[in-house]
Formats: sequence, structure tokens, C-alpha cells
Amino acid sequence: MRIPDTNNFFVPGYKAWGIHCGVKKTDKKDLAIIYSDREAAVAGVFTKNRVKAASIVLDIARIKSGKGQAIIANSGCANACTGKRGLADARATAEIAARELGIAPEMVYVASTGVIGEFLPMPKLATGISTAAGLLSASGWEQAAEAIMTTDLSPKLSIVQEELGGKTITIAGIAKGSGMIHPNMATMLCFIVTDANIPASILKKSLLASAENSFNNITVDGDTSTNDLVLCMANGAAGNRRPGVGSMDSRKFQVCLDTVTRLLAKQVVKDGEGATKFVELEIRNARSPIEAKRAAMTVAKSSLVKTALFGEDANWGRIMAALGYSGVEMDEGRTDIYVGKSKLVENGLGQGKVAERDAALALKQREVEIIIDLHKGRASSTVWTCDMSYEYVKINAAYRS
Amino acid sequence: MRIPDTNNFFVPGYKAWGIHCGVKKTDKKDLAIIYSDREAAVAGVFTKNRVKAASIVLDIARIKSGKGQAIIANSGCANACTGKRGLADARATAEIAARELGIAPEMVYVASTGVIGEFLPMPKLATGISTAAGLLSASGWEQAAEAIMTTDLSPKLSIVQEELGGKTITIAGIAKGSGMIHPNMATMLCFIVTDANIPASILKKSLLASAENSFNNITVDGDTSTNDLVLCMANGAAGNRRPGVGSMDSRKFQVCLDTVTRLLAKQVVKDGEGATKFVELEIRNARSPIEAKRAAMTVAKSSLVKTALFGEDANWGRIMAALGYSGVEMDEGRTDIYVGKSKLVENGLGQGKVAERDAALALKQREVEIIIDLHKGRASSTVWTCDMSYEYVKINAAYRS
Repeated sequence: MRIPDTNNFFVPGYKAWGIHCGVKKTDKKDLAIIYSDREAAVAGVFTKNRVKAASIVLDIARIKSGKGQAIIANSGCANACTGKRGLADARATAEIAARELGIAPEMVYVASTGVIGEFLPMPKLATGISTAAGLLSASGWEQAAEAIMTTDLSPKLSIVQEELGGKTITIAGIAKGSGMIHPNMATMLCFIVTDANIPASILKKSLLASAENSFNNITVDGDTSTNDLVLCMANGAAGNRRPGVGSMDSRKFQVCLDTVTRLLAKQVVKDGEGATKFVELEIRNARSPIEAKRAAMTVAKSSLVKTALFGEDANWGRIMAALGYSGVEMDEGRTDIYVGKSKLVENGLGQGKVAERDAALALKQREVEIIIDLHKGRASSTVWTCDMSYEYVKINAAYRS
Repeated sequence: MRIPDTNNFFVPGYKAWGIHCGVKKTDKKDLAIIYSDREAAVAGVFTKNRVKAASIVLDIARIKSGKGQAIIANSGCANACTGKRGLADARATAEIAARELGIAPEMVYVASTGVIGEFLPMPKLATGISTAAGLLSASGWEQAAEAIMTTDLSPKLSIVQEELGGKTITIAGIAKGSGMIHPNMATMLCFIVTDANIPASILKKSLLASAENSFNNITVDGDTSTNDLVLCMANGAAGNRRPGVGSMDSRKFQVCLDTVTRLLAKQVVKDGEGATKFVELEIRNARSPIEAKRAAMTVAKSSLVKTALFGEDANWGRIMAALGYSGVEMDEGRTDIYVGKSKLVENGLGQGKVAERDAALALKQREVEIIIDLHKGRASSTVWTCDMSYEYVKINAAYRS
């Protein structure tokens, strides 16, 4: 597996672009198109929120075919909580794009992100889709990645290459994150494309597994969005031999897809709203994988832990308290906590001033590693989170204005 | 039932006091004593966190007797995650107090709040207990209420009187809250005393019911503490006839206790860390009481809802999103949302500019009422929460330093 520089972001058989069409009040890009030059297998992972945006409702119906050829995504308006009119708007968006691209409307998937409860400005969007379709380019990925940003500070892209079935295949993705980042499920927009020739059934299974170990292992604020999804298209342009279920090649494909999604998930956390720190948090020796992940996510989303991280304060009592209310089998007197390389807590007790000082130094870094050993079993889980800063509050207090 | 002015805070047969003894680094009060002049029935509600402070472990063992006569509480140090030494310190605290008060150690309950993972300064505490015991006064409740504060801005007291079994009885309580305020369970320190003559069995049942409808209906930051508890003593000094199980008098007692705990719970939310707004949030017509409370608490603890409240932004989409991930049976297209008197959302759709403007005006007040009608059943639930401000982050980023 190779990880090419994202400056050479190119996936055979695909084009993309992003423009400003007027959904956002600022002059920032707000419309992205991704297009495959042939029919592709499509798999998706959708928000588990009961309140689903119109785009999600449409895509869930469409993806049953396992096929698709284009994705239209807008930022600035979520088109969620918009009732029948919202659903009609999502459908019309796909129809306009289909006409411009010369494909069937059922082959177009739609995604939206932004303020909930407002309607899409359809005339602007129609003009925008026409313009963007005309600009589609094999090197337009950064523009597309910018066009799906909301409060994100930077576009998120990742790309890997691998030998598969006698050919070189590429898997690449773009994502937006920032706020409302928390499982379950895919709690952001992420579009992945590959030129691999791979059956829709394997693609679906692989995507679910990858999402579970990447986007479902991150948290920014514990809120699950109405809009978020991961879509993955595979158009077969690489011409590789199709991998069979459970084959070495399908495992290779999984590893590549895991890499793309993890790279994007980490970028999402690093660019979390107001985040000043990126924290990798590992639970070791939990009773089961489910308990390991639950313990990790409970600590990772605690407001008290996150504000202490912002304050660069090695306040391990808050970590212990979060473990205690996580509902996971644990024994305070057997729990060890490491911050960076400092063993801050052993068998439930603080290890004194030198350990505190070393932990405080580790917390001054931009990236922090925390390891918690429960000594209860053999399962482990790694999740990624960020701190909670003044800026998070500021961004979210003023979001709509 | 009467609610006397808290300036005339007096409960027959009880004394209290609070002093600074040196647990806190500042010169603020950090040690409280509550003393009954005779043996009292005692009931308690304790944190459900698996990581329990030494004081909680001690009290849970002691309360099996259903009896007690004194409470020693310190702020500034939680004596949690302190292992065997911590438990010995808690036991020693009770022994010192028992000696000073001339009662059996088993009659003394201990409570601590503050930083986790540090040991109690026992010599300072011993001197402090001796001093405070000598100052005990029937009018010392405000001092005691001050001595249990951590980041609280003001002491919390409430008191009611009622005719019961031929006599006037008084129920009064003090509480501290501020951070780590979230069920389950009693997520703060609260001490309630009454001169009512009431069996320990009824006292226990009443306290559980009251806690469920007061302290378990509030949230500040979604974190459950290792230390928190509600203790209630009833010493019978009023000389009333004992109420029987299920009697009119025991129901009257319940109403009074509910009032005391709700008044304290609301004070805790109003003084939540960094809170600028007090929000009463009611879910109507949920499928069951459990679902009503779950929906209410999910909205009440959403960081995105709480930051929008701080920003005085009627961003109802975030309320809808939180309802959607609460796991409760709901249908976006049947949900109504009121902010103040403004019907902001009807059948899942925003009601336009006038409704938005009225809601925005309601949000500018210090106290805000939000009603959500799910139209799914007949159950309702009211909870109290506050907004999330820069100040919350600031307080918790710098808490230990």
C-alpha cells in the first residue's frame, strides 16, 4: 500500500469540482459534484438519528440498487426538518444534476450539511449545478472538499494505492466534519471513490467495517447529526480481477479502505470545532471489545475531561469518574492511566509529583496519547477526540447568525 | 405548606456550622458540621458511579442501621481514588467528630467534594472539626451551606413547614452543585433535616421518590460524580404522631420533601458552572414516563442545544436532532416545539419569522421555558438545565490550578 501526496490527487474514471452558488451567505464554496465516467457499485453508511435529512431519506431508498454514478453535495443548508417540500427539493436536485450529466436521476446521490430547518434555494442551486457540471475535472478534488466545509478550517482528503488483481487500484476520499461529530453512525459527510472492480456486496461489507473502526471511533461534541453519511463508489476503471468474498484481495481492499477512512476520521477530529488538541485514547484489557469501546468513548466525550485537556491539566480523577459511570466492568484499584509516557495512575492511585509533571508536559503538546489499562480482560479499543475550548462555545453560540 | 424566608432558617433539634480549616488553598470555608441533639432516622441516596469516594463507601455501610446523628462534610478535596488510606481517613474523620460531639462513631456520616485523587489533610481537618463543633449553632445553616461550596457562586438553602400529626413540622435542606451535575444518581451534596417523627422506612421511600423528581431531573454537564449524595435526617423533635405507610400524612410529608428537593435542585442549575440561563424543559405526550424523561434529558444535555441557548439563538433544528438521537419513539412530522410563548415548530416545520422573533425575545430572558410536544402518548416530564458558556470551559480548564 502506498499513500501518495494529496497534491497528486487523481482517481482514474472520476471527476470532481466545487463552486460557490449562493446557499451560503458568504462567498465560500457551497456546492460539490463528484462524477464517475461509468456506472459504479455504491455502498453507504447513514446517520442513525431518527430525524433524517431529506437527502438521507432519498439516498437510503436509492442505494438499494447498489448502483450510482454521481454525488451532489451542498453545504450551508441541511435540508433537514423541511417536510415534503424538503424531500421534493432533494429529488429535484438529483434530477437537475442527472440532466446536466446526461445520466438517469436514480444514479445521482444527494448530500446536504448546514443549518437545520431551512429550505434549499432551488433556483441558485440549479444554476450552480449547471456551472459546476461544466467545470468537472479529474483534478477537482480539493475544490470539492472545500465546497462541503461548514465550520471546518481546512479541506480533508486522503488517498492510497495498492496492487490488486493484477492492477494498481486507487482509493480516495474527501470529508467534512467539525461539529455534531459523534456516532452512531457516520457523523459527517464523507465521499470515497475507487477505480477498483469490486462487487457491491463486498464494497458494502467493507465500508461498514471501515466506518465502525474510524468514523465511529471519534467524537467532538457527543451530538449525532441528522444529515451525515459515508458514500463509497467503485467504478472498476482499474480493470483488476474481481476479488471474491473472503479472498486475500478483498482483505487487502479492506486494509486500504480502513486507511483512507482512518486518515479522514483523524483529520475530522484535528479540525473539530475549536479544537486545540488531538487526543488518541486507548483502553486496554477491557472485558470485551464492546466494553473497551464504550469506556473509551465515555471518557472521550466527557465535557470535564475535554475542558481539562484544553487547560493542559492532568486531572486524572475526571478520567476515573468517567470510567466509573461508563457502565463498564472496572475496578478502580486495578486501573492504570498513562498520559504520554507518564504512568500517572497505578492501581487506582496517583503516582506523585514527577508523574504529574511529566503528564503536564505531555499535555502541552498538540497531540496527546492517553492509555487506560483496566486489567479486566484482553479487549482493547482506540478512539480519537479533541479538547473543548472557549472557541467551541463561541462557534456554536453564534452558528446561525 | 408554608415556605418561610431562608433568613429565618431554623429546624428544632438541629445545629450546624461551617468554617475554613485549610483543605482549600484559599481562605474560603471548607468544613461543615450538622448535628441533631438526639438520634435521628437517616435515609440516603448515593452516586451510581462505580468509582465511589471513600465517604460514600463508608456511608453506604453505615446507613444500613437507618440511624444517625451528625454529618461532617468537607469541600476542596473529594477523597476519591485514594484507596485504603482514603477509607481510613474517612473513618478517622467520623471518629474525631464523634469524640468531639460525644456520640458513637457509627452515628456520624461523612461527605467530601472537590479534587479527585488527593488525600485529606487530616491534622488540619482534626483541628477544624474541634473548632466547628464548638461553634455549632441553631442558626448556623448559611455557614454550613457556604462550607460545602466548590465553584458554586452562592449557598443553597430551602425550607418548608407543614402541619403533620397534630404538630408543625419543618423540613429544610442545604446543597452544593455547580459541575459534575448529572444523574444518575444524587449528583451533588445535599443534606436535608426534619424534626418530623417519621419511620426510617417511610423516610427512605420518600427520599428516593423526591430525588428521582428533583436531582435526577437536572443536568449541567452530563458528568456523574464519584462523591455525590443526598442525606436526610429525621429526629422527631416536633413530637407529631408518626404517619403510617400510605397515610394522608405520609403523602403530605412527600409533598413537602419534594418541594425542598426541587427548590434545591433548581438552585443548583441556576448556579451551574458558567450558567447565564435557567431553562425549564418539558416533554409532553411521550409514549411513556421513561421515554419522556429520556427525551427531555437528551435535549437538556446536548452541548449544541446548550451553546445555542447561551447564544440566545432559537436554533430548533438542534433540539429536533437531539430528540432524533435520544432513542425515544418520535415522529418529526408530528412534533411541536414552543420557546417561551412562541410556537416555533408545528408538525416538524418552522413557523416563520414572527415565531422566530418571539422565540428570540424569550431567549433573551434569564429564565427560559421550552415545551416539546411529541404527540405520541400521554406521558410528560419536566427537567431543568442551563446554557453552556465560555465561563464553563474556563472554570473547568483551570479547576485544579
